Amino acid sequence: MTAQPPKHFIRLQDLSDREVEDILDLSSRMKQSAPRTNLSGRTVGLLFFRGSLRTRTSLVAAVQQLGGNTVNLTASSDFWDLESRDGAVMDGAAPEHIRDAAAVMSKYVSALAIRPKAKGSSWDIDREDEGIRAWAKHSRVPVINMESTLWHPLQALADLLTLRECLGELSGKRLAIAWTRSPTPAGHSVVNSILLAALRVGMHVSVAHPPGYDLDPGVVDEAQAAASARGLTLELGQGLEDAVEGAQVVYARSWSALDTYGNPTLAASRIARMSSWSIDETLMARGDDSRLMHPMPVRRNLEVSDEVLDGPRSLLYDQAENRLHTQKGLLSILLRS
Amino acid sequence: MTAQPPKHFIRLQDLSDREVEDILDLSSRMKQSAPRTNLSGRTVGLLFFRGSLRTRTSLVAAVQQLGGNTVNLTASSDFWDLESRDGAVMDGAAPEHIRDAAAVMSKYVSALAIRPKAKGSSWDIDREDEGIRAWAKHSRVPVINMESTLWHPLQALADLLTLRECLGELSGKRLAIAWTRSPTPAGHSVVNSILLAALRVGMHVSVAHPPGYDLDPGVVDEAQAAASARGLTLELGQGLEDAVEGAQVVYARSWSALDTYGNPTLAASRIARMSSWSIDETLMARGDDSRLMHPMPVRRNLEVSDEVLDGPRSLLYDQAENRLHTQKGLLSILLRS
Amino acid sequence: MTAQPPKHFIRLQDLSDREVEDILDLSSRMKQSAPRTNLSGRTVGLLFFRGSLRTRTSLVAAVQQLGGNTVNLTASSDFWDLESRDGAVMDGAAPEHIRDAAAVMSKYVSALAIRPKAKGSSWDIDREDEGIRAWAKHSRVPVINMESTLWHPLQALADLLTLRECLGELSGKRLAIAWTRSPTPAGHSVVNSILLAALRVGMHVSVAHPPGYDLDPGVVDEAQAAASARGLTLELGQGLEDAVEGAQVVYARSWSALDTYGNPTLAASRIARMSSWSIDETLMARGDDSRLMHPMPVRRNLEVSDEVLDGPRSLLYDQAENRLHTQKGLLSILLRS
Repeated sequence: MTAQPPKHFIRLQDLSDREVEDILDLSSRMKQSAPRTNLSGRTVGLLFFRGSLRTRTSLVAAVQQLGGNTVNLTASSDFWDLESRDGAVMDGAAPEHIRDAAAVMSKYVSALAIRPKAKGSSWDIDREDEGIRAWAKHSRVPVINMESTLWHPLQALADLLTLRECLGELSGKRLAIAWTRSPTPAGHSVVNSILLAALRVGMHVSVAHPPGYDLDPGVVDEAQAAASARGLTLELGQGLEDAVEGAQVVYARSWSALDTYGNPTLAASRIARMSSWSIDETLMARGDDSRLMHPMPVRRNLEVSDEVLDGPRSLLYDQAENRLHTQKGLLSILLRS
Repeated sequence: MTAQPPKHFIRLQDLSDREVEDILDLSSRMKQSAPRTNLSGRTVGLLFFRGSLRTRTSLVAAVQQLGGNTVNLTASSDFWDLESRDGAVMDGAAPEHIRDAAAVMSKYVSALAIRPKAKGSSWDIDREDEGIRAWAKHSRVPVINMESTLWHPLQALADLLTLRECLGELSGKRLAIAWTRSPTPAGHSVVNSILLAALRVGMHVSVAHPPGYDLDPGVVDEAQAAASARGLTLELGQGLEDAVEGAQVVYARSWSALDTYGNPTLAASRIARMSSWSIDETLMARGDDSRLMHPMPVRRNLEVSDEVLDGPRSLLYDQAENRLHTQKGLLSILLRS
Repeated sequence: MTAQPPKHFIRLQDLSDREVEDILDLSSRMKQSAPRTNLSGRTVGLLFFRGSLRTRTSLVAAVQQLGGNTVNLTASSDFWDLESRDGAVMDGAAPEHIRDAAAVMSKYVSALAIRPKAKGSSWDIDREDEGIRAWAKHSRVPVINMESTLWHPLQALADLLTLRECLGELSGKRLAIAWTRSPTPAGHSVVNSILLAALRVGMHVSVAHPPGYDLDPGVVDEAQAAASARGLTLELGQGLEDAVEGAQVVYARSWSALDTYGNPTLAASRIARMSSWSIDETLMARGDDSRLMHPMPVRRNLEVSDEVLDGPRSLLYDQAENRLHTQKGLLSILLRS
């Protein structure tokens, strides 16, 4: 069975002069070859600075179903801290500048999907979304945001498809965004994204949340401008029952309070008092044949009751499935060549 | 070289109305497309709650050689704790229910291969194999067990092919399962699986182990019923020499004692007294031209001597290679469409 | 939507006798099928004992662009310690011998790319490169070194292509290898590799470094023999300005001192005194229309100034891009069938 021993490549000296020549010639010719028109033979890079189940799996599957492949990198185990300040004297912990990492990755992959991690101490700093913007600034291939501090556009695309499948024409319909209680509240990215997406397609929006859980002022300004330009109603800070009244769709989501951002102890003690902020069948019945959306993960019987989640009102699994389909659509547009 | 800047997707606002429309239309059409008949364009999800070298590599390679792709997820770095109790009020550490994780993953992948992790404190609890059964309960695509507390069916398939290649007709042949000493004993999954697989194909089986290392009573009941139904001998708790006497195949494996399950200190002190439970050429010579099997990893010169492992009796590398081939066969059957 | 429940494979008992037969028959036939002539349907295994961004991404992309796939394994999370001593009684921490791991992996993959980790306490031991040589000894498929203690041949291939693209005929040209200061100095692998590669293609080489940062004596002997056989000048231990004088290319790189190997405190205090060992435009101007090379990651404004890195002298991104192309060439040669 064992013919001749395999040819190892431990040092360059293991190759003859002719082999080195052949490899270099072949490499030069390969370098000239034109990119193909679909994702066959193309690699999409996924960089995770935080964990991911849904996004990772659905994006990898989307690329693979288009005939492409991914390389998945996890910060700290696969790579290292990156410097992002221009002109920095790099004598600290970070051995590489994001400018260089992005330029190099751009040579290898057709797109870079990034899930950044916020620093978590100051909202004013984190809301700048530097962890994704610095990649976009320096990358020479499309950067795809896999959820940053402010935005989760992949979720928004899937949510729009789900809304259209469920309601048909969206203009003039009513969406209630409902804050829900969780011991580990999510970020603002999903709620910011669905808020602006819904207004953009002509839906009236009401946002229910307890005092102190206001959305980012910059996002609110943008939402109010969008509502005003389209003659839509936008109500903020309502109670749950008022917001759900007459809505076709209730979008449930926990999110953190900005005035205790970076102070988890204070944030936790406040959340503990919010036990009434939960979605059940009685609340849903106030809507207009209302359906429930939620980007998951969902804490069952805390954020939403099993009865609603497992009943006919739930669109959660449609939303999740549409992550796959819309990501395939997005990749086809972004990476058409 | 740099033509126009790449099109980034940081927020949904980065897309024009027309682009959003195009993506949603395209996504809808893609959603209708029928699945293909082989693994081309299909993704298999691999979820690891414990480490893996052989199983991970051989299963990934199997999928890829069938034209498919995998997405590999590792608990704790890639995803989080999962709740498995029905009706739970999810106010604890787990932010997601396995019911939802399984439903969502089912939308993205054609099969889910899972390597669960036992809790490790109570055998009565762990022997229920909830870590794999809960996935099977909720998944809408085939779940493949990559080794649970009780079973390792991928290993058993490979072992059956190896036995058939080595012995031809298996009915009436003799298999000795031999407990071996290891400072880090393996679980019961492999020995349970080969025990029942061998009886099923008509082999007489003897199991050698020191006092206190009995197999799970439920597994023993099932084995005795199988032996009795086929008129096969099944001997349990023999000494090494008696078990190997006249056997065509010796299957070596360490396994833990159930009465010290969850007590590693007690377990370790007992194992330290078992120095005679080791396989060497003298022992193997008692068999009938006997061959050695072992699922690996194998502790050389502790469980089995180098002389046996590197000599003509060893089937270990055939077993390992057959993991690849039988997994390709399995996938072709499970995922035929 | 839900037709019949999916077929799970939790135990072998879940399959009928006929299904087991079918799978085994199919597995046997699949085992006979001849390998294909390109990388389509072939898997390359990547084993990382240390982190990697550039090498991981470029090698994965290379394999994928050739139509193949990879399986990427990370030590400690995906697999375990491996024993490498022949004849060892394996009663310690390592549950598997590298001999067995390599033999098994060889059954699954077409090539094994390894990034070993040095033990880090003794240069005399680490310079033996056992972490890659043991794999090469036992593997039955080509082993590709993804950077060991002494060598980084993938980088050397890319550097040679870059040099040829930049200078055309290399014979008689001058290369300066310049030690640069870094709080986290790199290993010797890159500088050893480019030193011998440059001499091999006929370049005169000067190596600048502070006292105490001499290269490995064995590597120096090999370099001096190569220079002498080709009539080339090789100067070692020069100052930065002398080395760069008249050079067409300056190759910047930090590396550790061998006499403080394994003593990071001593090493750090010595490096702190080396502030003048930095590359800027004034230094580069001493060369002959000189270009800068560096394998990255590069500490900006510490090792090399932004002005040089972002100006026309820099070849860094060409080097990085050529990693991809030369790895595709290499794989095509190593894995031609």
